[in-house]
Amino acid sequence: MRIKPSIPKGTRDFTPDIMFRREFIFKNVKSIFKNYGYSQIETPAMENIQTLTGKYGDEGDRLIFKVLNSGDYLKDIEIDENFSSKTLASKITSKALRYDLTVPFARFVVQNQEKLTFPFKRYQMQNVWRADKPQKGRFREFFQCDVDIVGSNSLLSEVELIQLTDDVFTSLCIPNVKIFINNRKVLVAMIDKMQSSEYFSDIVIALDKIDKIGIDNVKKEIMSKGVTLESCDVLNDFIKCNSIADLENLLSDSDSSSNGLDELKFIFDSISKLELKSCEIVFNITLARGLDYYTGCIFEVVTKDLNIGSIAGGGRYDDLTSVFGNNQLSGLGISFGIDRIYLVMEELGLFDIQIDKDPSVMFINFGNVEALECLPILQELRTSGIISEIYPDPTKIKKQMSYANNKSFDFVVMYGENERKRGLISVKNMATGQQEDLSVNDFIKKLN
Amino acid sequence: MRIKPSIPKGTRDFTPDIMFRREFIFKNVKSIFKNYGYSQIETPAMENIQTLTGKYGDEGDRLIFKVLNSGDYLKDIEIDENFSSKTLASKITSKALRYDLTVPFARFVVQNQEKLTFPFKRYQMQNVWRADKPQKGRFREFFQCDVDIVGSNSLLSEVELIQLTDDVFTSLCIPNVKIFINNRKVLVAMIDKMQSSEYFSDIVIALDKIDKIGIDNVKKEIMSKGVTLESCDVLNDFIKCNSIADLENLLSDSDSSSNGLDELKFIFDSISKLELKSCEIVFNITLARGLDYYTGCIFEVVTKDLNIGSIAGGGRYDDLTSVFGNNQLSGLGISFGIDRIYLVMEELGLFDIQIDKDPSVMFINFGNVEALECLPILQELRTSGIISEIYPDPTKIKKQMSYANNKSFDFVVMYGENERKRGLISVKNMATGQQEDLSVNDFIKKLN
Repeated sequence: MRIKPSIPKGTRDFTPDIMFRREFIFKNVKSIFKNYGYSQIETPAMENIQTLTGKYGDEGDRLIFKVLNSGDYLKDIEIDENFSSKTLASKITSKALRYDLTVPFARFVVQNQEKLTFPFKRYQMQNVWRADKPQKGRFREFFQCDVDIVGSNSLLSEVELIQLTDDVFTSLCIPNVKIFINNRKVLVAMIDKMQSSEYFSDIVIALDKIDKIGIDNVKKEIMSKGVTLESCDVLNDFIKCNSIADLENLLSDSDSSSNGLDELKFIFDSISKLELKSCEIVFNITLARGLDYYTGCIFEVVTKDLNIGSIAGGGRYDDLTSVFGNNQLSGLGISFGIDRIYLVMEELGLFDIQIDKDPSVMFINFGNVEALECLPILQELRTSGIISEIYPDPTKIKKQMSYANNKSFDFVVMYGENERKRGLISVKNMATGQQEDLSVNDFIKKLN
Repeated sequence: MRIKPSIPKGTRDFTPDIMFRREFIFKNVKSIFKNYGYSQIETPAMENIQTLTGKYGDEGDRLIFKVLNSGDYLKDIEIDENFSSKTLASKITSKALRYDLTVPFARFVVQNQEKLTFPFKRYQMQNVWRADKPQKGRFREFFQCDVDIVGSNSLLSEVELIQLTDDVFTSLCIPNVKIFINNRKVLVAMIDKMQSSEYFSDIVIALDKIDKIGIDNVKKEIMSKGVTLESCDVLNDFIKCNSIADLENLLSDSDSSSNGLDELKFIFDSISKLELKSCEIVFNITLARGLDYYTGCIFEVVTKDLNIGSIAGGGRYDDLTSVFGNNQLSGLGISFGIDRIYLVMEELGLFDIQIDKDPSVMFINFGNVEALECLPILQELRTSGIISEIYPDPTKIKKQMSYANNKSFDFVVMYGENERKRGLISVKNMATGQQEDLSVNDFIKKLN
């Protein structure tokens, strides 16, 4: 049976040219994470379902990919017409694909706490899966790069992660990056002022959409839940506030050590003494971050050069590990959206100016006997870190040269009978077209 | 609700020390793949189910993890008691987790053929999932590293992959590696001689188990399928044959260009002219490799130092892409089992003697004000490629030092008021206990 080759909606194949560029990003990001003292961990693609459900809100729960139990999964289940998709799912699936890296990380920390050194600084670079509607920059399988530190509530960590974020975008040459900052405690204080504490979630969820739907629709949405017009007026005052100083005026009668103001001030003060290279930090009272688990500072990172949504985001969470049995671990993390960062770099032409290719050499194949004579030379080149191959078949030179062109080899080498007699190789520089006869040693020297 | 943290059976968390070692393997393997001119690709974790089923035999099909359709997956399905696990699965799942990298690769090649340069040399390093019974060295999620070349049937590729395999194990310092070689065409010729062609699959499946069950049980198994005693006697003669020369005698009356003999001879001749460093190639007539798709040379790699099964394996397949619509692409590949290679290296103590850590520095935290003064210095060190962090909280020195010990920092730096006045940092070498005052520049020079 012939099958038309295809892949599931929202997933992607990565061809060599794309992988080459992705690897460039991974390598840069990784080296920065490492230099800041973060260590790498990995967790399984599948988690037990109860680890994931209830952590991402109802909408999140619906988007989790569930894995059918193996074997005779219907055994001992009485099938009847009353089964709904939901009730049956809970009986025939016990594993699911991870939805983000943060919840598996919280699970990991509690499960492995005996083996870890706290405060624990980790990075994790793995795929996550969401049954979201695919669109530009949104996929069903995508890559996250997370750094987190758990076991400390020092604000120095917030400062460190901002510095690290600046280093990441500097190393990728992405300019004009804005790091929006807010604090969930500020939101709590604001909603207190609105006398609408019982609508906290509704207000946070609506605020999160303000860029898309506008302030009027935010008000409409929260009023439909029960927030009063007077409260919306208070909200208006807050939304107009553009700086920490403005905020300080509005919150002057509440306690600055508990309303998030002191935290924001420390961060802004500290950062102003350092020098950020590509990023600017900007206070944004409407930044809310829908996820339930944030409790302190929250971040969202965008580039002004491409309207693609956030390219990184994170915040502080004080309670995430408690559901797994350890409630003394405050954590702070930021997640870099590699797929969107890729799109930004592509759109801005940032790959071409940055990626250096290692030198590469292709040997022409003149026949089996001649080819075997080339193998020890190829081996020598590879040992010197030079990408080297011989065309596998002794076909027409034209075909072999076109392969060398398509794969962008820097040099094509001929080593036939004549060259062998003289102990030299004939080297063609593919960029200049120049050809010369060299000893293998001289060629290696030339390349290094 | 509290949840006891746990992960699905047969899957693993990788803590920093394990990841550090895994990354060492990945890095080495990758650099060799690259130096041989192979380019990296990636395919999605989930494939459409019809891409996978029917490629791995019945047993393989049963071990594929299926992903439940999203949303109201029972909609339009009439549930009744006659549903079996199998018939219902085909209605409620359309995606599955990849079972190996070879079939997704064949699908990839046909789907992306317009964008690729042929012969196409790729490597791929990703997880695969199998609902197998977990045991030592066998997991439900494990990592494969595959190199394949498609679009050429040159035997030079077989020689290249043997060389590459030798380089991989040499770079990891794994000694005493045996590469067992056979050819499916030899098996065809042998089974012809046995006059048992109709039992080809049964014989191949039984032969594959000879190491575990012994020759007598192999005979018993194939006789139970219908192979005669006389045929088994012929099989006996073949199994006794230890070299290509022996084989040549046994097959002297069949055509050496079609029975695989010429291929094996070319490979052994070529390899004897090169020098393998860690590996030895060994002809093994009982090597069969169960998978349906092999048609030519087959390999299986073991180390004599640990009885853990094969640590790599592969072979030539002439028809794998035809099911996806392209039948002119002969391919050859080898897959490295990173999880088992890890176990070998651990067991033989090969990590400790090989892995060099980058220099790392921890700053003592004396308080928020002092800490902020350290940040620019930390930044300088990181820019010079030195792993640097400051302890996030101004807690007791003893606690900070014990953190530095646990994370194996090479140096601990103090930068308090005294040091600041003199423009120096106080550096403690954690290995020697020696302490000295240095300028930041001198410290960086010392480390580089």
